[in-house]
Amino acid sequence: MPRIVDHDERRRQICDALLDVTAEVGVASATIRGVAERSGWSTGVIGHFFKNRKDLLLGGLRRAAEIHSEHNTRMLSTLEGLQALESILEGAMPLDRRRLAMCRIFFFFYAEAMCDEQLRLEIESYLVGWRRSVARAIRQAQEKGDLQPHLDARSISADLIGLVEGLATHAMLDPSALARLQEFSPIRFWVRRLALPSEAARDDAISDPVHQVVA
Amino acid sequence: MPRIVDHDERRRQICDALLDVTAEVGVASATIRGVAERSGWSTGVIGHFFKNRKDLLLGGLRRAAEIHSEHNTRMLSTLEGLQALESILEGAMPLDRRRLAMCRIFFFFYAEAMCDEQLRLEIESYLVGWRRSVARAIRQAQEKGDLQPHLDARSISADLIGLVEGLATHAMLDPSALARLQEFSPIRFWVRRLALPSEAARDDAISDPVHQVVA
Repeated sequence: MPRIVDHDERRRQICDALLDVTAEVGVASATIRGVAERSGWSTGVIGHFFKNRKDLLLGGLRRAAEIHSEHNTRMLSTLEGLQALESILEGAMPLDRRRLAMCRIFFFFYAEAMCDEQLRLEIESYLVGWRRSVARAIRQAQEKGDLQPHLDARSISADLIGLVEGLATHAMLDPSALARLQEFSPIRFWVRRLALPSEAARDDAISDPVHQVVA
Repeated sequence: MPRIVDHDERRRQICDALLDVTAEVGVASATIRGVAERSGWSTGVIGHFFKNRKDLLLGGLRRAAEIHSEHNTRMLSTLEGLQALESILEGAMPLDRRRLAMCRIFFFFYAEAMCDEQLRLEIESYLVGWRRSVARAIRQAQEKGDLQPHLDARSISADLIGLVEGLATHAMLDPSALARLQEFSPIRFWVRRLALPSEAARDDAISDPVHQVVA
């Protein structure tokens, strides 16, 4: 057995390799063998950490949730106002390989959770944490004067993560939906609909060729 | 074999029974036996129409797509402006048994489509049709003067169905998310962000206890 000090790190490396493989070939084609090739650890070593393929995928889900949560905490402490809010929301859009892998593994387990109560509770706890981060960013933006003060941060937060996940799902299913996301962020468009007039006016100066018809 | 004239009708009855069973017990627990009990047709008769359980589920998906498309066409021809738009969008929220069944079966096949190209193409075609209906409703609302005229109907349409599907997914996974949807329609809130000032002002007169903090 590896030393304790290395144990968590090695587990994390294996989960990161699983996410890399998932970005490349999708969840359905991600195998222990593929992760072994990618990570450099043998299938035997991987077997010390994960008892089967499903257990490895679950490790990937939890690693994705950890990366997501760390991203949100970092954005909240380093950015302000609308920038923090938009960066948190865009952290869950499949716009690069890492985020594509995260979207894929989350979606896979959402489907599993529809008929597995224990898994559903785990997914629910991730959604609660995500909503809480987004609501905190909304309140900070309200205090900074970027967003309308009378809006309910909890409800707006739940809606915005709904928007993000729906757009991410469609982007995974339809290349034209992904192409549109890459062109201009819908998140920015919708968040600006809640801005105070000064912020909304600043936004109008930014060209948004996707949502606005050019006269 | 049943007469041709009855064939389509019987098939539809079986698919409707599958949707009823799906609303009650979920896709994973929907079986040919359960559909036989519900529809009154024997498992043998069901076997004439669907070669196995997966084929029956696919029948349910296509029936759901048909119901959805008929709903959209009906709303476009009987309602106007924002009402038509909101009714089309709410047709895909899991707010009653029939719509819950539709959301469940669509979600099940979205997950399948992630690793089945033929199915993905079928799902993509449903998304294209849905976007087209919503874009038509947006243009009608623009012509009526309910929505800002400079908005791009295609993009707004893609975003709004993203919002609907994300909210529906979260409602299926998290009872608190469903309870919130039942309290006040987020669709109405976000669509009104795109209204012309007169329409938006009318909306402010409507109490929305969910999105607005009462002073």
